[in-house]
Amino acid sequence: MDIAYLNGKFLPSDEITISPDDRGFLFADGIYEVVRWYEGGFFDMEGHHLRMKRSLREVRIDWPGADEFPSVANDLIIRNSLHDKHALVYLQVTRGVARRSHAFPSPAVSPTVYAFARGFSPDPDMISKGIKTILKKEIRWSRCDIKSVSLLPNILSFQDAVEAGTSECIFERDGLITECAHSNVFFVKDGALYTHPESDSILSGISRKNVIMIAKETGIPIKENAVQLKDLPLVDEAFITNTSFEVAPVISINNIPVGDGKPGPVTLKLRSLFRNETLKLKKTSE
Amino acid sequence: MDIAYLNGKFLPSDEITISPDDRGFLFADGIYEVVRWYEGGFFDMEGHHLRMKRSLREVRIDWPGADEFPSVANDLIIRNSLHDKHALVYLQVTRGVARRSHAFPSPAVSPTVYAFARGFSPDPDMISKGIKTILKKEIRWSRCDIKSVSLLPNILSFQDAVEAGTSECIFERDGLITECAHSNVFFVKDGALYTHPESDSILSGISRKNVIMIAKETGIPIKENAVQLKDLPLVDEAFITNTSFEVAPVISINNIPVGDGKPGPVTLKLRSLFRNETLKLKKTSE
Repeated sequence: MDIAYLNGKFLPSDEITISPDDRGFLFADGIYEVVRWYEGGFFDMEGHHLRMKRSLREVRIDWPGADEFPSVANDLIIRNSLHDKHALVYLQVTRGVARRSHAFPSPAVSPTVYAFARGFSPDPDMISKGIKTILKKEIRWSRCDIKSVSLLPNILSFQDAVEAGTSECIFERDGLITECAHSNVFFVKDGALYTHPESDSILSGISRKNVIMIAKETGIPIKENAVQLKDLPLVDEAFITNTSFEVAPVISINNIPVGDGKPGPVTLKLRSLFRNETLKLKKTSE
Repeated sequence: MDIAYLNGKFLPSDEITISPDDRGFLFADGIYEVVRWYEGGFFDMEGHHLRMKRSLREVRIDWPGADEFPSVANDLIIRNSLHDKHALVYLQVTRGVARRSHAFPSPAVSPTVYAFARGFSPDPDMISKGIKTILKKEIRWSRCDIKSVSLLPNILSFQDAVEAGTSECIFERDGLITECAHSNVFFVKDGALYTHPESDSILSGISRKNVIMIAKETGIPIKENAVQLKDLPLVDEAFITNTSFEVAPVISINNIPVGDGKPGPVTLKLRSLFRNETLKLKKTSE
């Protein structure tokens, strides 16, 4: 049986239950984080940890144990015998259990903290071949910078992508490409990288941040400017970034090929450099 | 101990638990409904029932027992000895329990259906004196017509209203007044009623619908046109409608009095007519 975490305790996951009056269940009143374990180390735990604490601040949930996230995540890896494997750790914090009422509970109640780890089998060959995507009008709220569990808009949009036989849904808001249902998106034009700047309209992805850093170190020009919808036919390459896919080439949008319809050279170079960073995590632990 | 409902069973509420892998908890992947009991009958159960089934359709959750909502609600009233009291019944349906993944579970899993009843003590005198409100920029998603549990935007906005010492937050989207964090809003100008038309930008409130019907029967002109932000200083009266407040006069917005800062005559007339409708429910059962 897997071991999961609830409110300070590590328990067999089938023993973990939530109150139906948890504000996570009734109101989506909570935030989450997903961090990836690479056969010996977490990728940018510091980035994930900082972002989680920012999410908590933005929704004003006080989790006094927020600094324990790295150790809880590490314990979950060890207790589930995932140390030498690929894995993901998921952690969710809600405002806690209270009689249903829109206002924050007063006095405040203890937050609910739930976390689990699970093995993860990436298929890098599949991903390196490139993914298909669809383009949809943005339907999400205007605080996409908060990694909240209020995800129904993402779910509905992503499901449309799945049913179209694709792997991701790219959003357009007011004529600008923002990001995707669970990833950030980059474009390449004349050798330069373009992606939506940090703002309320996108989640500040940890993979996004690291790709930008790698691009800068490599001398690839990076412009944090949103690509306009009307300019999509002009881009040479596109790729998405997230914790599971790392850097995944986008070969089509709404069945229209991006560039020549194959993963582009800048994308593949960044994908390779990103993967090199993750390989160091395995090495460190040996 | 209160009796609540979970997936076909009536149980003491402290025996009801939810899996942390319920998509309601992880993704806000669910919808809800609240219906009010007036000492002997539900107010417009048919309207609530139809809306609940519409919400299910819109998010594509299949609850084969959806037609049982009225009888589940009734049973909860009886089992909790609320028959001759004021009460609310809350019902929530999520897509069910599944290993965390954005896509709908495939094959589909059974939805989770949770419901409870609780006594409700309205304070009609307090409400008839009028409530204060704040005005905020709309931050919600673009499918506000679905009564989903993806409510974090509403929670954060409503909390701002509470901390400003007010009872509701009115939203403005693109220069138009849409609705509130958990109610619809109406304005009166020169004896006519104005409210945002049914659209993706508002929830089609059951109280809203009944107020419009009553206004029509009474000969009060009703225009389903959104009021512009810039025209707010010109309105004579304002009120909100929802299941708990029925018709509640709005006496100020951001500390600026609406009209003369007192509940207006059209508002009070509609409030009184609406309450007459609810009194019939008590009478019916005697």
